[in-house]
Amino acid sequence: MRVGLLTGGGDVPGLNAAIRAVVKRGEGEFGHSIVGFRNGWRGVVDGLSVPLSRQHIRNVLPLGGTLLGTARFHPHSKDGGLDAVLSTLEAERIEALICIGGDGTLHAAQKVAEAGVRIVAIPKTIDNDVWGTDASIGFDTAVTIATEAIDRIHTTAESHDRVMIVEVMGRDAGWIATTSGIAGGAEIVLAPEAPFDIDRIVKFLKHRHRAHASFSIVVVAEGAVPAPGTAMHYETQRGQFGEVVAGAIGERLKAEIESRTGFDTRVTVLGHVQRGGTPTAQDRILGSRFGVAAIDAITSGQSNVMTALRGERVELVPLEEVAGKVKRVPDDLLAVARALA
Amino acid sequence: MRVGLLTGGGDVPGLNAAIRAVVKRGEGEFGHSIVGFRNGWRGVVDGLSVPLSRQHIRNVLPLGGTLLGTARFHPHSKDGGLDAVLSTLEAERIEALICIGGDGTLHAAQKVAEAGVRIVAIPKTIDNDVWGTDASIGFDTAVTIATEAIDRIHTTAESHDRVMIVEVMGRDAGWIATTSGIAGGAEIVLAPEAPFDIDRIVKFLKHRHRAHASFSIVVVAEGAVPAPGTAMHYETQRGQFGEVVAGAIGERLKAEIESRTGFDTRVTVLGHVQRGGTPTAQDRILGSRFGVAAIDAITSGQSNVMTALRGERVELVPLEEVAGKVKRVPDDLLAVARALA
Amino acid sequence: MRVGLLTGGGDVPGLNAAIRAVVKRGEGEFGHSIVGFRNGWRGVVDGLSVPLSRQHIRNVLPLGGTLLGTARFHPHSKDGGLDAVLSTLEAERIEALICIGGDGTLHAAQKVAEAGVRIVAIPKTIDNDVWGTDASIGFDTAVTIATEAIDRIHTTAESHDRVMIVEVMGRDAGWIATTSGIAGGAEIVLAPEAPFDIDRIVKFLKHRHRAHASFSIVVVAEGAVPAPGTAMHYETQRGQFGEVVAGAIGERLKAEIESRTGFDTRVTVLGHVQRGGTPTAQDRILGSRFGVAAIDAITSGQSNVMTALRGERVELVPLEEVAGKVKRVPDDLLAVARALA
Amino acid sequence: MRVGLLTGGGDVPGLNAAIRAVVKRGEGEFGHSIVGFRNGWRGVVDGLSVPLSRQHIRNVLPLGGTLLGTARFHPHSKDGGLDAVLSTLEAERIEALICIGGDGTLHAAQKVAEAGVRIVAIPKTIDNDVWGTDASIGFDTAVTIATEAIDRIHTTAESHDRVMIVEVMGRDAGWIATTSGIAGGAEIVLAPEAPFDIDRIVKFLKHRHRAHASFSIVVVAEGAVPAPGTAMHYETQRGQFGEVVAGAIGERLKAEIESRTGFDTRVTVLGHVQRGGTPTAQDRILGSRFGVAAIDAITSGQSNVMTALRGERVELVPLEEVAGKVKRVPDDLLAVARALA
Repeated sequence: MRVGLLTGGGDVPGLNAAIRAVVKRGEGEFGHSIVGFRNGWRGVVDGLSVPLSRQHIRNVLPLGGTLLGTARFHPHSKDGGLDAVLSTLEAERIEALICIGGDGTLHAAQKVAEAGVRIVAIPKTIDNDVWGTDASIGFDTAVTIATEAIDRIHTTAESHDRVMIVEVMGRDAGWIATTSGIAGGAEIVLAPEAPFDIDRIVKFLKHRHRAHASFSIVVVAEGAVPAPGTAMHYETQRGQFGEVVAGAIGERLKAEIESRTGFDTRVTVLGHVQRGGTPTAQDRILGSRFGVAAIDAITSGQSNVMTALRGERVELVPLEEVAGKVKRVPDDLLAVARALA
Repeated sequence: MRVGLLTGGGDVPGLNAAIRAVVKRGEGEFGHSIVGFRNGWRGVVDGLSVPLSRQHIRNVLPLGGTLLGTARFHPHSKDGGLDAVLSTLEAERIEALICIGGDGTLHAAQKVAEAGVRIVAIPKTIDNDVWGTDASIGFDTAVTIATEAIDRIHTTAESHDRVMIVEVMGRDAGWIATTSGIAGGAEIVLAPEAPFDIDRIVKFLKHRHRAHASFSIVVVAEGAVPAPGTAMHYETQRGQFGEVVAGAIGERLKAEIESRTGFDTRVTVLGHVQRGGTPTAQDRILGSRFGVAAIDAITSGQSNVMTALRGERVELVPLEEVAGKVKRVPDDLLAVARALA
Repeated sequence: MRVGLLTGGGDVPGLNAAIRAVVKRGEGEFGHSIVGFRNGWRGVVDGLSVPLSRQHIRNVLPLGGTLLGTARFHPHSKDGGLDAVLSTLEAERIEALICIGGDGTLHAAQKVAEAGVRIVAIPKTIDNDVWGTDASIGFDTAVTIATEAIDRIHTTAESHDRVMIVEVMGRDAGWIATTSGIAGGAEIVLAPEAPFDIDRIVKFLKHRHRAHASFSIVVVAEGAVPAPGTAMHYETQRGQFGEVVAGAIGERLKAEIESRTGFDTRVTVLGHVQRGGTPTAQDRILGSRFGVAAIDAITSGQSNVMTALRGERVELVPLEEVAGKVKRVPDDLLAVARALA
Repeated sequence: MRVGLLTGGGDVPGLNAAIRAVVKRGEGEFGHSIVGFRNGWRGVVDGLSVPLSRQHIRNVLPLGGTLLGTARFHPHSKDGGLDAVLSTLEAERIEALICIGGDGTLHAAQKVAEAGVRIVAIPKTIDNDVWGTDASIGFDTAVTIATEAIDRIHTTAESHDRVMIVEVMGRDAGWIATTSGIAGGAEIVLAPEAPFDIDRIVKFLKHRHRAHASFSIVVVAEGAVPAPGTAMHYETQRGQFGEVVAGAIGERLKAEIESRTGFDTRVTVLGHVQRGGTPTAQDRILGSRFGVAAIDAITSGQSNVMTALRGERVELVPLEEVAGKVKRVPDDLLAVARALA
């Protein structure tokens, strides 16, 4: 069987573990030929394929990024893109395609599946907002990096009445902000799920610094917004791919807090460091399990499904149940962050 | 309300996150008095209590170990131990007790609960074998450390035909071995769940080294054993607390492999480094969530339950369902380790 | 003997190792009383002292920050500040004072020494620009953090023709930029010691991306500036303490590079994460050695000297030789960074 | 010019940085052809050469091990080995040879140099005992790993009266033991430079545990020995390459301490994890600087020299001054370890 494989969207650590698992299991156990496409969907459109076998995946487990390259490119949003995809897959005699990606890639996968291609998807996103799975590849590493940064900032308590803002990723969901905020012991966590009231924040900070503290940490997701009708007006600023402009909310919050409290306020924007470097053990394990599950699904005739972590098990969910939905941070987890502030 | 708190059994990273959450939530939200006992059940027997409030838990999130101390001590296995426990709890006017521990501590908790004390348990063990929960505090850090060690050993491929054995913890279940073996890319993983056949191992190693490789990594859980009726005879060696003697199976395997293959074979016994140091983000989050859930359970009148992770949710399970059972590595996860060898 | 101790200026990792060494050696070996002052020179002016003995320094080696607190405050630049210092030292019967700090603190120390106080200084600064010593406390940790960040950014090579700018600390000297640039494999390193020509940078990037690369990393010290007479005009922006405004040069460079090359260019400003968190082994060793050397110097009657690393040895240099000078990155090290681009 | 390059002896992190620097500088700046030999001197004897250019060294900075392979093999100790070396070098038209290695490799280099070959050596050894240089490649990473392990063990203070022994590398010199002991806060450091008296150790531990402590850490170099005439008799156990048998002194010490104090005593043998994994920033910088210096030395006509770190400078020292000498830990550094116990 000839199985295609691509990684789309932004880089995350753990992609190579999934690629390795697909190749090892597909080639070693079932004798499939694995055909990689470079740079996500763009490589399928452009016909950039590369045969993948065991020598290509040696020693890749600790490496960040993806050995296939990736791109933020969606064939369905480009005129003729879908035709080019079908044409390449036919020319390469691809019988099934494994797509590793986040919501954009999965959305494209759904369109390609509707055109008759057998697809198995593997979710990856540091934002952790893919619906239907407890975890996506890359999230654990991002939380680990953000927590380490908060730890570091915690010890730089040099001055009196300082507020440190740490802006982390999370466009539509505040998973990184909420979990790293809990793990790092942040005083305030701001997530898109719970629009904030700047007056309450300012009141809390003033009270806290008056009482005893000289130092507060605010972790803010890039997609956090003020609640309608509250004292601060702000709309999320987006770039050409719909991504949030790094630093925008962080800098804006700094200005508000500084002018309303008088406290020296600093912003650290973690940015790209959150999505690079050696993957955590969890992301390697998740990538490995998803890769094995994907090739097993294809081999057993499954189609148009996504691998998903459900508790301790890896299961398959229909792709159409997943596409277009956002998994938001549940109230009980937001409540834990608040309870420990 | 006066709530007691203890940490029992071996140290693991993440205990302080749980203690912090109990205190912050218990004192700050509900106004409870939190009374800590030193050194696990031993401190209850000996009446070693210490009031816990917010100043005791400052900056403890990144710290390994437990600020309360711990001990491998079980009151039910000591004559009069249970009476001393009840007497201390009465003297201290403890209305409910939060016990953080592994199977030994939970077993004791069950006995104390049967004597009429309100108990909420929180599972911790780097072995991850507490039944009824997807994860226990300390496991993620241990896997992270073991994976890092395997990564390091992977790059020391100086000689030809070398076999590196890495012995990790796991007395009754091979969670660390299986997951760190997957994450680190081990060639062979040996877990208590799947007794091994030394002949097959030797054959595999010879074949692999003849074919192309000069280097193989074997990850072995301390509790792994040969299958009955196979060529190697070995029984797990235990110390005074029933713990496995570190290095025993590793050294024995080394001798077998070396004599049967002629390959230079080395053992690294990770030992105590697996249970110390700063907790991973996941272990801090798990500890924090369990701590909040425990105090919420007590406040809402629950009793004789254990906090448990189930998928993305923290739930409560009856303590009696948990005690005495071992959560073993499921076949599908063992299969992933084998598939990627 | 009563010995005073303070930590001044910005936080760096490794300060606690030095404090611990002063206390262990001073109290344990010589029987001195160690008196700590809170928040640097401010604590001396305000008379905020705290006795330091062995129980205060337990388990502090892995902790970032300083258990004494610190402040950017210079008594000599405040009317009556010096008098307050002398008055506190007399009231506390301090016979000698150990000052741990960077150029600001050392400058103040020199003024206080001129007023007749016996001073031994210990150099700390992540910028590594204290004259007379091979290394200052905090530098190794900062380089380690910056290198790790560059590693992470290296793997996020998702798009074509992307330039990643990493702005690191280094106001007057580019030690962090140069060494982390070498360690992380940056294509371009910009340090204050070698004012840059934006035209050459742009030419290099265009050539490199045309030839083969899709990705370039530029590491820039916050104090880097364009050479006079070149195509870009920029002056370093400073805050109230003379510190450089974080992100200013990074954002400015981004704008220049993006407009002149058309390449997608992103900035990561490391900021405060560089000065926090657990110190590296080297910074703990350096802090420990300097602490021992300082108390030994005081005990043997030395005065107005600074501890200094010279090759493998710790030596003492006269404070007056050091104050007011900046140790710049030597040409041969800048040349290595250029050679490996 | 055709320049040969080999890495000999045990693996250490940072070798790839040196290889990369030799290639980038040699090929890019001077237009030399760089010829790598596989597996140290063995590859020269066997004629296993590989041309090295820029594409081979991409992304190797963070990788442990050596992309050339290595072996513990000395041509001068093998009949006809030297002739085979000369014959290969002539066949490959090698005009000068860069040898990266520890004492064994440098000794062989000296023999080859005496036979008329132009040699530049680069020192690497985690033991840090190469004479004539402040630091050798690999040492900083080893100290970092050992310190992290001691940190982890520090937090596992579960029981009363426990002694934790950490055995680290260091056959003839105790650099890792001394520096990681200082950085990790060990109570006792045992190095080959200062043969120990078991009676004093036992007395110290008993006193310490009686006074206040429940926990002590002993860091022991594998080459540490009891002083002649003291109560313990022990000789260092060696393997076929003269290397020390891992765990031997650690286990022996455990037996002595346990039987004489009655304290529960555990050993952790760090072993191969000390020499693997991603190199620290310092080791990458050192490797890079040494690589550049080596190729510059060759290009400027230097011969039979070793690159050496002297303070902040990289210098060249005659190979014959270095060979056969061991750089031991100086008394003042041993004294710091003792002072902080």
